[in-house]
Amino acid sequence: MARTDTAFLLYADTARSADMLHFGHFNAPDPFIALGLGRKKIAVLNALEFGRARKSSSFDIVLPLEPWLKKARGHHPKTKVGAAEVIALLARHYRQKSFDISDDFPSGLCDRLRALGLKLKPVAALFPEREIKTAVEAAAIREGNRCSALGIAAAGKVLRASKIKAGKLLLNGCPLTSQILKTAVEIACLEAGALSIDTIAAGGDQACDPHERGHGPLRANELIIVDVFPRVSATGYHGDMTRTFLKGRASEAQHNLVAAVRTAQLAALHVIRAGVNGRHVHQQCLDTFARHGFETKRTSKGSVGFFHGTGHGLGLEVHEAPRLSAVDYILKKGSVVTVEPGLYYPGLGGCRIEDVVQVTDAKPRMLSSFHYDWEIR
Amino acid sequence: MARTDTAFLLYADTARSADMLHFGHFNAPDPFIALGLGRKKIAVLNALEFGRARKSSSFDIVLPLEPWLKKARGHHPKTKVGAAEVIALLARHYRQKSFDISDDFPSGLCDRLRALGLKLKPVAALFPEREIKTAVEAAAIREGNRCSALGIAAAGKVLRASKIKAGKLLLNGCPLTSQILKTAVEIACLEAGALSIDTIAAGGDQACDPHERGHGPLRANELIIVDVFPRVSATGYHGDMTRTFLKGRASEAQHNLVAAVRTAQLAALHVIRAGVNGRHVHQQCLDTFARHGFETKRTSKGSVGFFHGTGHGLGLEVHEAPRLSAVDYILKKGSVVTVEPGLYYPGLGGCRIEDVVQVTDAKPRMLSSFHYDWEIR
Repeated sequence: MARTDTAFLLYADTARSADMLHFGHFNAPDPFIALGLGRKKIAVLNALEFGRARKSSSFDIVLPLEPWLKKARGHHPKTKVGAAEVIALLARHYRQKSFDISDDFPSGLCDRLRALGLKLKPVAALFPEREIKTAVEAAAIREGNRCSALGIAAAGKVLRASKIKAGKLLLNGCPLTSQILKTAVEIACLEAGALSIDTIAAGGDQACDPHERGHGPLRANELIIVDVFPRVSATGYHGDMTRTFLKGRASEAQHNLVAAVRTAQLAALHVIRAGVNGRHVHQQCLDTFARHGFETKRTSKGSVGFFHGTGHGLGLEVHEAPRLSAVDYILKKGSVVTVEPGLYYPGLGGCRIEDVVQVTDAKPRMLSSFHYDWEIR
Repeated sequence: MARTDTAFLLYADTARSADMLHFGHFNAPDPFIALGLGRKKIAVLNALEFGRARKSSSFDIVLPLEPWLKKARGHHPKTKVGAAEVIALLARHYRQKSFDISDDFPSGLCDRLRALGLKLKPVAALFPEREIKTAVEAAAIREGNRCSALGIAAAGKVLRASKIKAGKLLLNGCPLTSQILKTAVEIACLEAGALSIDTIAAGGDQACDPHERGHGPLRANELIIVDVFPRVSATGYHGDMTRTFLKGRASEAQHNLVAAVRTAQLAALHVIRAGVNGRHVHQQCLDTFARHGFETKRTSKGSVGFFHGTGHGLGLEVHEAPRLSAVDYILKKGSVVTVEPGLYYPGLGGCRIEDVVQVTDAKPRMLSSFHYDWEIR
């Protein structure tokens, strides 16, 4: 599936661009130029990155930026030269005028390059092979979920260690907050070799906004969503898992809510395989919730019920192809997706349960593992 | 300095786009549409983010994405509609055809919008006011550096606790590695409320590649660069500080190297004020190193000496305007810059010392604070 026919051009740093990381297996915090010409991978790096790139990247040719900038100044004596002029020179050097670029290639640079005579064509997926994970990539995602699970376990441990007093949760005599829970998750991930950013540890009504990270004191007898999607530092691949906890005693309504979410997750997992439409997988969750009487609707203050997709691809990006949602998307063998139905009702609380699987010709291969016990007395 | 005259358009998530975070004071992991029309800030968010954005963002108008998508489908029955068609509808709704976009606006979307008849003009700085930090922003950066300093202190503590055995460093009987040092830094930052990504803790020749993060065992009597640029979770602003340590006994050459770097930093700090050219500040470091006999040159394996800029702007991004480097850049009052000369010679080692200041009409205001003792016996 690798592109060998067309030339392509990247200009990005690897914190923002998973394509660039995929292309060169090299981390750089500032944007740099990279070209794909046939099977040849070429990068242009400044003195700060040059030595490291020569040693540790998978680029076939690493060129030093400074002499190319100097040469570009010779060609454009009246312009403040930058990446555009260097790319134009490289294009001339390699006799290539047309390049594919990714949809998120920067517009300013794109306009300048077109003005310099290059033909640039944005494409939705510069590296379509990223959707299909190799065994090494699947192992890297499994490692990400090992970190996620350690983070979730750390949250469970804090909740078990906390005491209930007048409906509040106390840890070592102080109010237990979302921040404390998040920090416990993030330290566990760090110690396991992964960076958990935007960790969610949200309780009660806060958890009904699925992207609310959580803040302030957590309370007894309320559902607490813990969603952990760390990036393994060594590889750049992610884990992504969610569990919903409750410290104290759950009501019957809370039990029904959690049971419905887990049933929906199992229903989705049951139909995932190569060739199936992601929309069909999503429909299993919708049907399960309808069958259990959980309604989804938009209100003036936001939506309630199940109002996000069932899952998304996972890899070098937390959200990538494919999707399990209301849009058509045929699942391919080897792709990796989250399966994460959820229900959210302010007053009652929110619940989301998320695991990660790799699509096969038969039942999906689990790439995450953590128990589903959620009520902590 | 805020733009009130032109309309502008953003499509970005806030992990990648500091402009979007600056514009709406709202964190969202997936890209969304935002418009500036005169003084009005408008955002379009899906059900997952809508409620939280209404509650916690600084957008004047938060529109729900789904009905706009539906309306767009009505207008484009034969197209798979997306952000482009929704933006085109919004443009019609608000009777605005021309928008400024940032240089890094995604090219794919830009092409589609132009095909739909919009006029888009990439500009280098969509929010030029970001360069000048308010008192609140300066305090947020100072807080970032409080976290950096705690991280660096944690590294110092680990080095003090380590023992030297046959030239190696042992912590609790095990080899002390860059990873252990980095994890200690990152945990200290987390506990302080900030996320330290790509922390550098590199010793010996590794530290001579300024962006090498460091890996493997650290050794006695070698220079160890610790560079910590955490993002404060509550605000999105960064700290950025570097100290260079050595566990054991420094050679005279190492002493001279460290002294030259600190002297260069003081020379740069001495001339920073509003109206001065960043190139002139950088020149102070170059002159100091020349005076001390430290040569900079490119070799076939990379560069040695001082081969990066003296500093960069710091704020919602780790690297932003202005620059203290070989290019002309007049410093403005209120801007915040790092001051971080360094010297790197494989065999001898690398040293970088970095602090952060705010530019004033007189001597710069320090926004970072940590001692300069570096030799740990």
